[in-house]
Amino acid sequence: MLSSVAHPPETLRDSVGLVRTHQATLFEPPDELRLECGRSLGPIQVAYETYGQLSPQRDNAVLVCHALTGDAHAAGYHAPDDKRPGWWDVMIGPGKGIDTNSYFVICANVLGGCKGTTGPSSLNPATDRPWGLDFPVITIEDMVKVQKGLLEHLGIERLLAVVGGSMGGMQVLEWTVRYPESVAAAIAIATTPRLNAQSIAFDAVGRNAILADPDFVHGQYHAGSLPDRGLSIARMVGHITYLSEEGMHRKFGRQLRNADRYRYDFTNEFSVETYLDHQGRAFVERFDANSYLYITKAMDYYDLTARNGSLEAATRDVQAKVHVISFCSDWLFTPAQSRQIVDALHSNGKAVTYCNIDSPYGHDAFLLEPERVGRLIRAHLAAAPADWPETDATVNGDVGDRSSLVELRADHRRIEELIRPQSRVLDLGCGGGALLDSLRGAKRVRGKGVELDADAVIECCERGLSVTHGDLEHELPRLADSSYDYVVLSKTLRALRHPGRVLEEMLRVGRVAVVSFENGAHWSRRLRMVLRGHSAPEDLGCCSWRDTPNLRELSLENLERFCRRGNIRILSCIALSKGKAVRAWPNLRASEVILALTRSGEGFLP
Amino acid sequence: MLSSVAHPPETLRDSVGLVRTHQATLFEPPDELRLECGRSLGPIQVAYETYGQLSPQRDNAVLVCHALTGDAHAAGYHAPDDKRPGWWDVMIGPGKGIDTNSYFVICANVLGGCKGTTGPSSLNPATDRPWGLDFPVITIEDMVKVQKGLLEHLGIERLLAVVGGSMGGMQVLEWTVRYPESVAAAIAIATTPRLNAQSIAFDAVGRNAILADPDFVHGQYHAGSLPDRGLSIARMVGHITYLSEEGMHRKFGRQLRNADRYRYDFTNEFSVETYLDHQGRAFVERFDANSYLYITKAMDYYDLTARNGSLEAATRDVQAKVHVISFCSDWLFTPAQSRQIVDALHSNGKAVTYCNIDSPYGHDAFLLEPERVGRLIRAHLAAAPADWPETDATVNGDVGDRSSLVELRADHRRIEELIRPQSRVLDLGCGGGALLDSLRGAKRVRGKGVELDADAVIECCERGLSVTHGDLEHELPRLADSSYDYVVLSKTLRALRHPGRVLEEMLRVGRVAVVSFENGAHWSRRLRMVLRGHSAPEDLGCCSWRDTPNLRELSLENLERFCRRGNIRILSCIALSKGKAVRAWPNLRASEVILALTRSGEGFLP
Repeated sequence: MLSSVAHPPETLRDSVGLVRTHQATLFEPPDELRLECGRSLGPIQVAYETYGQLSPQRDNAVLVCHALTGDAHAAGYHAPDDKRPGWWDVMIGPGKGIDTNSYFVICANVLGGCKGTTGPSSLNPATDRPWGLDFPVITIEDMVKVQKGLLEHLGIERLLAVVGGSMGGMQVLEWTVRYPESVAAAIAIATTPRLNAQSIAFDAVGRNAILADPDFVHGQYHAGSLPDRGLSIARMVGHITYLSEEGMHRKFGRQLRNADRYRYDFTNEFSVETYLDHQGRAFVERFDANSYLYITKAMDYYDLTARNGSLEAATRDVQAKVHVISFCSDWLFTPAQSRQIVDALHSNGKAVTYCNIDSPYGHDAFLLEPERVGRLIRAHLAAAPADWPETDATVNGDVGDRSSLVELRADHRRIEELIRPQSRVLDLGCGGGALLDSLRGAKRVRGKGVELDADAVIECCERGLSVTHGDLEHELPRLADSSYDYVVLSKTLRALRHPGRVLEEMLRVGRVAVVSFENGAHWSRRLRMVLRGHSAPEDLGCCSWRDTPNLRELSLENLERFCRRGNIRILSCIALSKGKAVRAWPNLRASEVILALTRSGEGFLP
Repeated sequence: MLSSVAHPPETLRDSVGLVRTHQATLFEPPDELRLECGRSLGPIQVAYETYGQLSPQRDNAVLVCHALTGDAHAAGYHAPDDKRPGWWDVMIGPGKGIDTNSYFVICANVLGGCKGTTGPSSLNPATDRPWGLDFPVITIEDMVKVQKGLLEHLGIERLLAVVGGSMGGMQVLEWTVRYPESVAAAIAIATTPRLNAQSIAFDAVGRNAILADPDFVHGQYHAGSLPDRGLSIARMVGHITYLSEEGMHRKFGRQLRNADRYRYDFTNEFSVETYLDHQGRAFVERFDANSYLYITKAMDYYDLTARNGSLEAATRDVQAKVHVISFCSDWLFTPAQSRQIVDALHSNGKAVTYCNIDSPYGHDAFLLEPERVGRLIRAHLAAAPADWPETDATVNGDVGDRSSLVELRADHRRIEELIRPQSRVLDLGCGGGALLDSLRGAKRVRGKGVELDADAVIECCERGLSVTHGDLEHELPRLADSSYDYVVLSKTLRALRHPGRVLEEMLRVGRVAVVSFENGAHWSRRLRMVLRGHSAPEDLGCCSWRDTPNLRELSLENLERFCRRGNIRILSCIALSKGKAVRAWPNLRASEVILALTRSGEGFLP
């Protein structure tokens, strides 16, 4: 077969190869699909593709959900001379982020689409003409119900994971709340629980352009000219929102196409104009105006936040381990919107990871950052419990055999001794997750980390830990009172702008706060100050603009005063000199201190 | 007259009252205007309005430049029963930001417009039909040339100020570089020296929508249906870019209009859709599709950065005092673009102020923040030298009689003694400008401040000081080597994240760095550390999340070590205890220290 293929062997080697789109007929009489709008629809054709092998236990199925203009053809090639593979070929294939050697991958064209699944340009059986605007308005919920129907048709009861970006991510969220018992892991990328006013506005402009096109004729354009002008304008507007200002600047700047001076006319002369024009023209070749109307409307309507009154209420029954990925430069579905999902799941005590990837590609980054997104997806799939739902998916520490091989830092070892088995631990500034990983193995805790560095966050995900990407000074106030037994802050206190406030927050969020820090009143430091009259030389922070140097000279005595004044009990004080405990004169002799503090009535130490 | 007026007397009292639009005919034969595109145009009709009285010396004229869809009618009412005043009535009138009791204000419709000035829907004298797309492509430069022609027609040789927002700001910039000798002060609001790729893309979509409208017929639509659908789409796209995501969220959120549930059809049901639809419909009533094409093209073409190879080169001959105002949430013409103007002028040693106003209103904030923008404009107009150009406008300290009434802080008094008369001084964290104001009066320095707080920046502007709104740790690296004689940092060193790096930068940018700080090695502090083993209690920063507490315990000895290591000379060391100089054991006895440091060979103290 390979000999007849136009692609070099290297290309096909890491591809799923030649694939074809299948058709399923669902909701056949007497069944029909009851839509959110109140109308019913059936039978429904669904176009789908699959890659990889379904395991005998049927426990390795991964559903991939596509975005607005995607389709069932997510990976591989339809013909040997295809110029381009499926839309997410960078992610799906042998050895890739979604490894088809391990997983059985399914991707289906959405309800309302124009690539083989029933949609507004399908034939209306009642009239034998295309539906046009007589097609019922469909929603994300309806799309997911059809996907569920397809999985049943394929004999798959549970998904190991559901994965998708943009509108695909909305479907992922819907899966977790509509079929909580059917999803072990959910990976929602560059998405939102609901569109904001600005996104609705952009969609509305696109729809207006289509509806205003004289060739649209109420969606019954199939016999005559197509509403290409309107659809092309809609695509141009959309395309601007998929990129970022920085990305556009890098790609086009103010370059002129094929010229070094202005032409002083109204042809497309800036490269960015030519690009948009090309995007518009190419789009009308492959997409249907009616589908564009219906699918953007479905996106506008989706509002998980309004469901049951709040996002917290809507996500109360989620059982899946949810992984949220956003991109710094995505201004269509912003990181703040992704954070709403993370916060809601947190407030329900659910297992969730969050990573905000620094990329210049805007919303499109979910397709254009295969390396980092791939690492995350691979990690999340590996962490998805195959034996689920027998174990409690919200308990993040039950993968004991994967950890414990970690060489712990000295202060981490001391901190670990302070933690009771099977407690809930929040590690602030958790780095790559060494402490949490060890605690999970040694103490079977339910751990969670907060970390500023994206690579460290990815490392945590690869260890299967629950982690939030962010600045701990901003993260703490988002967390509910007493949501942890221990909140740990190791060797970071002196680098904070507001250490006192962070300690207060740690005591609000956790029953016990565990802090380790270098003691600024160690005799060597005092001697320097008394005899030589200066503090540590690094206090001028000369190293680099970007360093996070220690900002403060805090001592054990400082912390003790802080506790006395704030009515905080010191449950344990471990004063260390060269790694060994010192008892007498700790504030003079200790170079490093670990404190366990509490405000609650009872202590909570082993 | 008031009795017949539909407006309540309160409204008219602070209005310029009833006004009318005048017409001037410029560039009559044998003259004609040579356009940037190479073609010529003439005669040119110009519609304009004026408010206030021209002074006998003709030195109080303020030109207001309008944005894309504005016109000559900037203030007052055309008829007693007008529902709305001119487009910038909040800013122009007796006692307002541009006070018509003091200034003679002129506003003219731009070349290419559709409100009385010659444009593409005017009659082409050669054919006696509207020009349509046969009208020559015009530029911002051409618009400004026509404005200059109008001023000459009115007998005004020099402008006290030229003011404008958005595209009006581009005209302001063009005035400063094209007619440097004719402008004393330039106030450029929410503008850019050139559009970025994203803005060009949005304009291109709008133009595409108009050009694709079957009613456009190559711009010759005047006899039949108008291209309202295309123009309305263009306006909708534009309108989204004029607001901010936050502003749209506050104004509309996901509210439905007249409904509490979805209608499941394609009518406009979200409030934001209705709003956009209304904006589109209202716009086609008042604006011309041809003008929209031509004016957006003029904006896309404008590129002050490319002129002479760089923005620095383009602004080399600017004589006006330039004031730049941007808005945090403006994503169309971003604060970063405003900063490019400021940086270029700085690098040429020009007088410039910059304020970045925190507003949720996006680009439209230039019309919607009359209070703060008004305070700034009022201050800038007051600071514009009426006797200009007799004095050197780039020297910011020549208004001696306006200052010197300031009660100086003790450390400021000491610092002032260190400064040579008529030198160049940069004050980092200048607050409301007390030190600079005093230095201007007492030492006639050329001063400039950097300040983080917007209100303090406005205060500086009201004192007529040159000031940049920003974080000094970010501002310093933008400044050229040795661009100041003194760089002052008073009582801020210990609150910095990177004090050492800031000192290095101060010594790069200035010949002498003057720094005042509380001495962390004062005996009382040493005693506390030695005997009680803790540093200052405020070092835990418990006060508030938003405070900028002192981060570091720095001593005179720390600074001396820093200087020794860095080969920095200490020109002067003033050690103070309770405001009095101490000579012996300064690091032990001084509670406050002022140091003058240098790296250059020669000292530079009085």
